[in-house]
Amino acid sequence: MTSWPSPTPPEALAGRRARLRERLRGPVLLASGSARPRNFPAAKYPFRAESHFLYLVGRPLEAAALVLTAEGEVLHVDPPHPDEALWRGETPTLDELSRELGLAVRPLDDLTVPEGAATLPPQDPEAARWLTEVLDRFVEEGSGRELTGPDAALADAMIELRLRQDEGALAQLRQAAEVTAAAHLAGMRATRPGLREARIRAAMEAEIVAAGMSPAYASIVTVHGEILHAERHDGRVAPTDLVLADVGAETPEGWAGDVTRTWPACGRFSETQRALYEVVLGAQERAIAAVRPGAEWREVHRVAARAIVEGLVALGVLRGDRVELAERGAAGLFFPHGVGHLLGLDVHDLEDLGDRAGYAPGRTRSQAPGERYLRLDRTLEAGMCVTVEPGFYVIPRILDSAAELGELAHAVDRAALARFADVRGIRIEDDVLVTATGSEVLTASVPKAPADVEAAMRG
Amino acid sequence: MTSWPSPTPPEALAGRRARLRERLRGPVLLASGSARPRNFPAAKYPFRAESHFLYLVGRPLEAAALVLTAEGEVLHVDPPHPDEALWRGETPTLDELSRELGLAVRPLDDLTVPEGAATLPPQDPEAARWLTEVLDRFVEEGSGRELTGPDAALADAMIELRLRQDEGALAQLRQAAEVTAAAHLAGMRATRPGLREARIRAAMEAEIVAAGMSPAYASIVTVHGEILHAERHDGRVAPTDLVLADVGAETPEGWAGDVTRTWPACGRFSETQRALYEVVLGAQERAIAAVRPGAEWREVHRVAARAIVEGLVALGVLRGDRVELAERGAAGLFFPHGVGHLLGLDVHDLEDLGDRAGYAPGRTRSQAPGERYLRLDRTLEAGMCVTVEPGFYVIPRILDSAAELGELAHAVDRAALARFADVRGIRIEDDVLVTATGSEVLTASVPKAPADVEAAMRG
Repeated sequence: MTSWPSPTPPEALAGRRARLRERLRGPVLLASGSARPRNFPAAKYPFRAESHFLYLVGRPLEAAALVLTAEGEVLHVDPPHPDEALWRGETPTLDELSRELGLAVRPLDDLTVPEGAATLPPQDPEAARWLTEVLDRFVEEGSGRELTGPDAALADAMIELRLRQDEGALAQLRQAAEVTAAAHLAGMRATRPGLREARIRAAMEAEIVAAGMSPAYASIVTVHGEILHAERHDGRVAPTDLVLADVGAETPEGWAGDVTRTWPACGRFSETQRALYEVVLGAQERAIAAVRPGAEWREVHRVAARAIVEGLVALGVLRGDRVELAERGAAGLFFPHGVGHLLGLDVHDLEDLGDRAGYAPGRTRSQAPGERYLRLDRTLEAGMCVTVEPGFYVIPRILDSAAELGELAHAVDRAALARFADVRGIRIEDDVLVTATGSEVLTASVPKAPADVEAAMRG
Repeated sequence: MTSWPSPTPPEALAGRRARLRERLRGPVLLASGSARPRNFPAAKYPFRAESHFLYLVGRPLEAAALVLTAEGEVLHVDPPHPDEALWRGETPTLDELSRELGLAVRPLDDLTVPEGAATLPPQDPEAARWLTEVLDRFVEEGSGRELTGPDAALADAMIELRLRQDEGALAQLRQAAEVTAAAHLAGMRATRPGLREARIRAAMEAEIVAAGMSPAYASIVTVHGEILHAERHDGRVAPTDLVLADVGAETPEGWAGDVTRTWPACGRFSETQRALYEVVLGAQERAIAAVRPGAEWREVHRVAARAIVEGLVALGVLRGDRVELAERGAAGLFFPHGVGHLLGLDVHDLEDLGDRAGYAPGRTRSQAPGERYLRLDRTLEAGMCVTVEPGFYVIPRILDSAAELGELAHAVDRAALARFADVRGIRIEDDVLVTATGSEVLTASVPKAPADVEAAMRG
């Protein structure tokens, strides 16, 4: 059984705020957001606070605002309404919250907005409207891609802090990884031919909910792994299917796990499934081995892509010179997404700021088929956390499209590919921390080698 | 194992649209809403379409709009983008959708907004902005409480339709009830002293997810039943605790189940728990027996309140004349919420329109302590679906407050109440359909009698 999530200590949060203030001249105002109505005003989606707020305050407080100035730090939040206690129970007073967080806490009504305060656009429209009002300038929700002036400087300072995970962040990511691992084990054990995908998803998410966490993103649990973000779970699992599960847990403070495993519905990989699984696994292992400080992420992606090409040439699915095929982007025919992304408080960390975080200054997205979906293009540094997730997919829209195939059309041996008809999609994904000397796989406890996966499925 | 959800047939949906058009002179434009960003634009909350749209179209289509005029009906929705297929799989073309729904389907770009079209304010801010733009008048999300002109007429027509459930709606509500029942059984079976509440919640929600449904509202699974909408699940279940679970399933089309059960953590009610449980159960049974066409909902509430008072007098917790105590609102000290609410596409059905649906024209909320939280005040009619959910709670904020107690302070026998220290909160809730001659409990398969609950916990 996994342990109950423990919050980031107040000193760690204070350290983050201090480091942010050191990096910035001007004042900052950040909103926490509010729960969004679902089908009527009182029925809301589960509240998820804004990530930048969570990074600095560490508690999912609703309708709160953090003010940082040269003079100090104040958290503003409305005191609990007495009538609310009947419905929601007692919540901490502002004094109690202040003691718990080691931070001055005052009512929202006492907010004085510092002149020229920088902010970051929230995802919550209500918070965006509130910021627009109190800052007296237009703040649009979700508009973090196009920032200027103090907001851009704040974004850059936050990126600088959040790109490398501190000790408190690592403690959170390890907790998320532990529960994510439990979810995958539960999924493997719950799988039986004849069940629907939804039953396996339910078993996985139950581990996450039982551990006091939430799914970090829309869970993918599918026998159609070739649909990269499959959202349906109504399919029945056939004995010859592979089940692909891309499921992660998020701590109450918002830190994410993000793991994919692919396992055989019947409990044993067929020879063809195992052969392609080993190709993807080899690619993932080589990519992880390439993760170290100073390495270019683009190169990690290419290591994986080359391994996919080499494996497919060895199996006869691709024909030609492996180096040349790799250079011509043959991997992209079967592995059309990037090898991974930043991981942290967001499952695609800092993606609210567009490519500002994922791409080093001066770099922009490539248009090459194999690389246009790269979410990250930076030199790796110790403390960064990334996912490494190559895959192999048989995607008719690519393999049946002259436009997508281009000159690579003759490189695909259709007869050879047809022999692997019991494989539609395989992805293997782990969460990897860049260490001082190399890397550490945070999700190493999730079974991955075929024999380990088969053993886990036996329970 | 529960069956997989089946959608409402197109003819039933066409019938609803026809009935709405008969009731209205003018044209209608309704939006389906869009998925709301969670922590960054690509990471969204699970999409839940607007209820009025779902009622008429029956499919949770994103960013769609329904136009009804005297001349006809058109559903507008953008055709699937080819690039999306890579990530989300193939989605039906507009032609396929049109055949499935028996309705003309055109791209959003082809939308012609009928002059003077009525609409209902969506919960989704994005949809509200879109309606504001295309209707050229301000539509604010979640503003369904204050409608005028054609919007008010549309609201009244929708209420007239939705107050009485048609055959298609009943089929959906029965499916939701079936899965809700499975969830409660799973919760009873999963309960063991020493577990956290979250583990029981996980077992219950897993049944819902496995059945292809979603939780219809934020699940309450708590040993603190006296907190009416307890949102925490971190408490450990002690052997002497009662577990209160208020959990319901929602079909993919949005129809809700809403059931509460309360069971003993150790698998056997203590004498004191059983005594108070029987009081609440008796109140619920008498209230359900009072549900019939022509009955006033306020009177159903009072039947439950009187039964609570009588039971507490019999147990010595209340002192005095039962009729007089009931008239003075003594039930409200231990049962401070309404006996139930409308149930349908929303768990509090039509609550997006405020009390316009729940309260008959000309009626407004009472300020009496026992009745101010009544969500419904109408004469019952066959076809209405309601929840019946009396409770007993020991709420310090009420029982320790001179203001709340008023002249009833002396009516509470503190020593007698203290003998029931192993009870903090009990609620028993079922989903009840008003039939031509009385009522039908849609959720009758969820164990309720103490012996049945204990048997279900043994598995």
